[in-house]
Amino acid sequence: MADKPKLDERLLGFHQVNVLQKWTTQQFIDGMQRHGIGAVAIWRDRLREHGATEVARMLRGTGLQVLSLCAAGLIATPDPGEAASVIDEVKRAIDDAATIGAGSLMFVAGGVDPRDKSLESTRKRVLERVAGLTACARATGVRIALEPLHPMACGSRSVLSTVGIANDWCDALDAEDVFGIAVDTYAVWWDPDLPRELARAGKRICNFHIADWLADTQDLRLDRGMPGDGLIDIPGIRRMVEAAGYVGHREVEVFSARNWWQRDPDEVIGVVRERYQSAI
Amino acid sequence: MADKPKLDERLLGFHQVNVLQKWTTQQFIDGMQRHGIGAVAIWRDRLREHGATEVARMLRGTGLQVLSLCAAGLIATPDPGEAASVIDEVKRAIDDAATIGAGSLMFVAGGVDPRDKSLESTRKRVLERVAGLTACARATGVRIALEPLHPMACGSRSVLSTVGIANDWCDALDAEDVFGIAVDTYAVWWDPDLPRELARAGKRICNFHIADWLADTQDLRLDRGMPGDGLIDIPGIRRMVEAAGYVGHREVEVFSARNWWQRDPDEVIGVVRERYQSAI
Repeated sequence: MADKPKLDERLLGFHQVNVLQKWTTQQFIDGMQRHGIGAVAIWRDRLREHGATEVARMLRGTGLQVLSLCAAGLIATPDPGEAASVIDEVKRAIDDAATIGAGSLMFVAGGVDPRDKSLESTRKRVLERVAGLTACARATGVRIALEPLHPMACGSRSVLSTVGIANDWCDALDAEDVFGIAVDTYAVWWDPDLPRELARAGKRICNFHIADWLADTQDLRLDRGMPGDGLIDIPGIRRMVEAAGYVGHREVEVFSARNWWQRDPDEVIGVVRERYQSAI
Repeated sequence: MADKPKLDERLLGFHQVNVLQKWTTQQFIDGMQRHGIGAVAIWRDRLREHGATEVARMLRGTGLQVLSLCAAGLIATPDPGEAASVIDEVKRAIDDAATIGAGSLMFVAGGVDPRDKSLESTRKRVLERVAGLTACARATGVRIALEPLHPMACGSRSVLSTVGIANDWCDALDAEDVFGIAVDTYAVWWDPDLPRELARAGKRICNFHIADWLADTQDLRLDRGMPGDGLIDIPGIRRMVEAAGYVGHREVEVFSARNWWQRDPDEVIGVVRERYQSAI
């Protein structure tokens, strides 16, 4: 790739999820330092093992920038009692994100519920509940990153299926200081409206996640590919995201139960570093 | 469901794929007659076992209406030599559809190729190649049904990911007598633009396929749900399709390796008949 410009190494972001199966949070933090990676995303299930205060203590003095806490949300339930409880949980996640100094909290909407089956109602009530989080997020200074997931997650984890919906929601929320959009190549690459909607998103784009789509994908959630191993024109999407005004990190986030999670984390980090230049 | 109107039984369409694993084509034709089902879709891989002329002979005198032959296409290759070969294969499928008297030939675009990775180029060349089929299809009287597949098939089987793209292609093809759109609940249910794009499609809708999305979906292709077992508001989509002007069959098409394909076909047919009234 002679014509591919070298990317600024300081803008590589590394997700804890890439090495989730083999390393504790402390090992992860140590590993990032050993490999000279300066920006990370913290995985919330791992955060819970220690609590945010303890993880904040682990991070102190390391110089590591925490790009995001991943993830919170799943507030699509049609049951008002359940809704109150899951919204409280999102507020705790906002506090946790503030405690560890995360730039963003990844927000995952939740899927359609069998008790309801109405996509329109589900999207409407998720948006109303997100609006209700505005003051809480503003008070902590944590940005809520609305993250579209792939349409195949519409039944399980997210009715927020496109950058277009995320833009519509940001229009309705009218709180650009609080809400942003996380763009994940894996979730959005198929979308014919992507060029238009990324341009429309502009400075709303607060996180850029990267994984590849494998030709022989075998699982709806945990079979993502390392950048370069799949079918997505990742450099093309990166250029669109950056042309829209995004100047932040390129965050590699590969959920890979059958391949990368089986490998030695130091090897995974080496591959991510190499692919950052060759395939992003 | 007291307020659900009874559907006309004559508009139930039954896909050979529902009983693909247990029955030969002859058994399928006999079974449809035994159960009083008058309209079917024929599965092309099964057609190949006998050839179209022989299947036409099996169908003769049965009174069975053949709604479609499923499927042909996969013409997305970036290699011109391969393209010539796969386009010839689609032309053979058009002839086969005419031979068995099928109303439509289901057209599946093909996925993004690792040699190319450009969605825009892939969609452009598939559209050009489809345009090249116009005269051949017109001469046979077979309608080519452009069938959007779920975006999760974008890397494997179809870059035609939404009804919106199908409408754009129909606009560009400008041959409404030849090209139609097949709407499959399983492929399109997540799409926020669906109401608008179904209305736009109007009389272009030439086939309406029905399967449900299971909450615990385990496979990207062969784990569809029987109507009523999943999360899709199937009656809501049916009403939109019919409000757009569609007056044809409601075709149940359930690819289900782990469940329905394991069952006795007579049982499957009974369940489809029941769900036709209770869940469609």
